[in-house]
Amino acid sequence: MKVIEVGRAGTDANDRDADLLRRELKEKDLFLINLMSAAGSGKTTLLSRTITDLRGKASIGVMEADLASDVDAAAIEALGAASIQVHTGGCCHMDAVMTREALEAFDAGEARILFLENVGNLLCPAEYDTGAHLKVMILSLPEGDDKPLKYPLMFRESDALVITKMDAAPYFDFDLEAAKRRAKALNPKIEIFPVSAKTGEGMEAWENWLLTAWERWREDA
Amino acid sequence: MKVIEVGRAGTDANDRDADLLRRELKEKDLFLINLMSAAGSGKTTLLSRTITDLRGKASIGVMEADLASDVDAAAIEALGAASIQVHTGGCCHMDAVMTREALEAFDAGEARILFLENVGNLLCPAEYDTGAHLKVMILSLPEGDDKPLKYPLMFRESDALVITKMDAAPYFDFDLEAAKRRAKALNPKIEIFPVSAKTGEGMEAWENWLLTAWERWREDA
Repeated sequence: MKVIEVGRAGTDANDRDADLLRRELKEKDLFLINLMSAAGSGKTTLLSRTITDLRGKASIGVMEADLASDVDAAAIEALGAASIQVHTGGCCHMDAVMTREALEAFDAGEARILFLENVGNLLCPAEYDTGAHLKVMILSLPEGDDKPLKYPLMFRESDALVITKMDAAPYFDFDLEAAKRRAKALNPKIEIFPVSAKTGEGMEAWENWLLTAWERWREDA
Repeated sequence: MKVIEVGRAGTDANDRDADLLRRELKEKDLFLINLMSAAGSGKTTLLSRTITDLRGKASIGVMEADLASDVDAAAIEALGAASIQVHTGGCCHMDAVMTREALEAFDAGEARILFLENVGNLLCPAEYDTGAHLKVMILSLPEGDDKPLKYPLMFRESDALVITKMDAAPYFDFDLEAAKRRAKALNPKIEIFPVSAKTGEGMEAWENWLLTAWERWREDA
């Protein structure tokens, strides 16, 4: 049985676009974070709380990529933060060309940290470099501690893993240590932040890490 | 709230690649069919029966695109048909570049009709022209008659809709006329074939349509 791996040529071209975009954003002092997760993991809730908590320390803008609807972008805008809704024409991921288009249409105002809320799925977004400087993934507690086993690439590719909805721990059979161990086995460098955007638990550690990553990036020539 | 649509630039480049591939395949007398559906809809079972039924009339080869595993390609090979397993590196669709790579690695032998079994989902595969001459989608009865409402693009893009697992009709609340009406509302030209690859019901109509489409394509200059 012959088995071949395809798709590298397409992603090679995307990788070049992404590297170029990353350099252009650096020149504009715009720090871009690719935020990935499954649908319904609490991306918008995490961002809303982060934006509010970091007011005065960092100005954050959000690009909400979605197949349709604009409820997430409206929620961010209601906080007074710059946001734009990006429709992906039915596709399940953002690539560098799409991210560039979104950035060109986005009036980020004062924002210097831009989150790209990628389309909600744990597969394709992990495959495509968007030109972001940092990749953060969310795993929500109800999704289960076995997700690193099923979607290894997403865990391998991410700089940080935010485990959301920790306040729901009493209702679910989620083994936090097992989730951490499985994520670290795939990616020893991954930073892990269990949080509850509802109660505030763990938010400070995540926010401090984010600010530090941003400062380091700014200092980088 | 600003809302933008992205992704056209990427798919424009893909469309050019796809047109070129389509012409090259025509010169080689290879008729390529992009077969799309959700996971578990019975693509491999439909193809297995079609290959067997058309023995002597048409030689069929199959490229099985999947995230991983090679069970589908092995099932086709067991019938004595040319097959190759294509892994998409985690991505949820095939594009023209990936299809070209697969074709270059594929020893199709005598086969003149090649099916590309696309990755199992109803979203992304509809967005990407693979260079195929014909697009066929499968809807399996247990998925429900409302699918045209939820995944309109796939129905709009397809030349034919094969409704599989019709033998399971007694166990499901599937309104065949509603499914047909919804599909035709999106795409008045779509040909619809309710079949059961298990009992053979409806297979001849589907197979005759396939042979006719192939003959027409061969006669086309």
